[in-house]
Amino acid sequence: MDKTKLQTLKGFRDFLPRTMAIRSRVIKTLKEVFESFGFDELQTPTLEYQEILLGKYGEEAEKLMYLFKDPGDRGVGLKYDLTVPLARVVGQYPEFPKPFKRYQIQPVFRAENTQKGRYREVYQCDVDIIGSSTPLADAEILAIISIALEKLGFEKFKIRVNSRQVLFATMKASAVPEDKYLTTIQSIDKLDKKSESDVRQELADKGLELTQIDAVFNNLSQAQADDYLKQVITQAQSLGAKNITFDPILARGLDYYTGSIFETVVEEPKIGSITGGGRYDNLIKDLGGPDLPAVGTTLGLDRIVDVIEELNLWPDVNPTNTNILVTVFSPDLLNESLEISSRLRLNNIPTEIYLNPQDKLDKQLKYADQKGIPFAVIIGSDEIEKNLFTVKDLRNQTQEQLSLAGLISKLSS
Amino acid sequence: MDKTKLQTLKGFRDFLPRTMAIRSRVIKTLKEVFESFGFDELQTPTLEYQEILLGKYGEEAEKLMYLFKDPGDRGVGLKYDLTVPLARVVGQYPEFPKPFKRYQIQPVFRAENTQKGRYREVYQCDVDIIGSSTPLADAEILAIISIALEKLGFEKFKIRVNSRQVLFATMKASAVPEDKYLTTIQSIDKLDKKSESDVRQELADKGLELTQIDAVFNNLSQAQADDYLKQVITQAQSLGAKNITFDPILARGLDYYTGSIFETVVEEPKIGSITGGGRYDNLIKDLGGPDLPAVGTTLGLDRIVDVIEELNLWPDVNPTNTNILVTVFSPDLLNESLEISSRLRLNNIPTEIYLNPQDKLDKQLKYADQKGIPFAVIIGSDEIEKNLFTVKDLRNQTQEQLSLAGLISKLSS
Repeated sequence: MDKTKLQTLKGFRDFLPRTMAIRSRVIKTLKEVFESFGFDELQTPTLEYQEILLGKYGEEAEKLMYLFKDPGDRGVGLKYDLTVPLARVVGQYPEFPKPFKRYQIQPVFRAENTQKGRYREVYQCDVDIIGSSTPLADAEILAIISIALEKLGFEKFKIRVNSRQVLFATMKASAVPEDKYLTTIQSIDKLDKKSESDVRQELADKGLELTQIDAVFNNLSQAQADDYLKQVITQAQSLGAKNITFDPILARGLDYYTGSIFETVVEEPKIGSITGGGRYDNLIKDLGGPDLPAVGTTLGLDRIVDVIEELNLWPDVNPTNTNILVTVFSPDLLNESLEISSRLRLNNIPTEIYLNPQDKLDKQLKYADQKGIPFAVIIGSDEIEKNLFTVKDLRNQTQEQLSLAGLISKLSS
Repeated sequence: MDKTKLQTLKGFRDFLPRTMAIRSRVIKTLKEVFESFGFDELQTPTLEYQEILLGKYGEEAEKLMYLFKDPGDRGVGLKYDLTVPLARVVGQYPEFPKPFKRYQIQPVFRAENTQKGRYREVYQCDVDIIGSSTPLADAEILAIISIALEKLGFEKFKIRVNSRQVLFATMKASAVPEDKYLTTIQSIDKLDKKSESDVRQELADKGLELTQIDAVFNNLSQAQADDYLKQVITQAQSLGAKNITFDPILARGLDYYTGSIFETVVEEPKIGSITGGGRYDNLIKDLGGPDLPAVGTTLGLDRIVDVIEELNLWPDVNPTNTNILVTVFSPDLLNESLEISSRLRLNNIPTEIYLNPQDKLDKQLKYADQKGIPFAVIIGSDEIEKNLFTVKDLRNQTQEQLSLAGLISKLSS
């Protein structure tokens, strides 16, 4: 390949070791939280038949899909989200006990406009409950979001909660004509980006009367969670959820939601919502699966990692998990270094042995430093004789003499 | 979607919870072993520019590639292996300290003939060292293979080792013409599938003289590892590798290998090699990267999991990680069940609360049993008063009364 062409496609990224260390730790934490609530993992293929993907998301979405013919001339496409594959799986395996609680962490593909800083391959972390219509199911999803974000070190997050029923009741109480419910809600949803007067103007342009607009704003300011949503919020709090706010202007597109809706935002950086979900009792059936109620959320791995990196939430993250470099004093002492490295590994200490034994010690130490390995050990003939090894702490440039047992105890602590 | 069309593409699979439990545990073990040797994780995009992928693997391979135009009319393709993306990354980020030791666990895509039981989306687990030409680097790769397979519970595996130099020396000693080295080696490589007389015939058909054929078999039976390979094997053993066999007939295609070659086979089931690798000192440069020596291996996740499942190596694997179902005795006692479930989770016990509190207890217990959850706890008014809960072991249908502390201690053990 031409050097000038050594590049990834726009919107696609390599994840180099330091970022991978953060991504792996986020995924590990999310998996632990999902499993702590009794969710099991599912994975589905990267490619699906086009007929599974098409006609589900609307025209706009289909323009963003990666659709093509495979070498066998079948019409195929890359996954666009994790919900349609879930619906397929639920339909394909009716024997799964219900509620079916699954989590899924995989990339999805959308040919978004990259100028908005959007990625075309993003990792979604989905957690869904299929087959329960109780507020407890919604509550569990909210608790998972809150506990997961807390475990990741997020402090200033807000889980906004509303429901389709509450929104429609407000429209009705404001005498908005039924055929204008959705468009009115879509304008209201912009209140966190636009001024009230701009939204009022937009509603007037959409044909709402002034009395209706006044009523909408008046009723919104007095809107309250309904009984279902109150139960959801109370039970979520019982399960350990924090930072839940009833937010009467939250709409989240609303296209397929049938009940509760929720999303999570952070104050800084400004990157839109980091989770989005709600109850979608008709979607599985509409997608061709069985008629089963469902509730769930997506946690966006890429945005979560962006927040962690931008706010430097994990300053201690190392680009490497390697704890120590075992240097090779001279090629004839290689065996001693091999033995020490094996002993350290047997004690669960991630240990790298320097692979080019002919290199000078200085070069070996510089390598450890460049890679961010915190310690290096020197094993020369003096050390071997005394059974005391020189251990360098490369972060503060100190060194000490330690026995192998002392070294193991130091690195294990 | 039409019910009859609820299916995955041929050669593509859903990984349902029980299989995912095995796959996750294999990946976790491999990552631990890779990191114990100082390797850091890398991920690259699912899609690459076609010019990155094409002209690297040969005509046959290119027929199996998923190549297409993206929505922006760019020629793109799905990853075919993890080595070409690695070469791109090494070329794109020359600042990485060398040796660059990376591991990568991601799916690759090949439109193989599925009638041979082959998958079209397979997960490769690659571990490579870029920038070291010492036998120690080869040895480290062999040690990783051996230690990883042992940790996975494999017993009867054999790591076959040979080198291009040994093969070529045998050809030379047998007076095989230099332009027939490769084709001769390719025939010899079939000796584990074909009889000696069939291979002799094949060599005769390829134009080798009878004296040359006799010499080849005679020299093969006396072939020995050269100095480099002997060092590789000794050092690998020092690092903990077992079951390494020098095997003079191993060739592994040989297309891009420049030194050592190795693969791992298991006696049962018959599924071909589960790892394959070797030294490829020219490949990174040929792929358009810098001129750096390299050695590494692929471990095939799908075949490894197939072996574990077929030999039932992990009989204790549960389809779920959930340890206990907290039942809901009646809707008015839901809060007590919520509280217990939160307390269990705080003690790191994966706990599912039954989400449809109106269901009868029998149905709740049956659900736990169907899902393979080993324990269930019943929290009725009696239990709440006495602070003693009924804990059912669903595997052997026994039950006992335990305090919350007793329950936590039982489940933590």
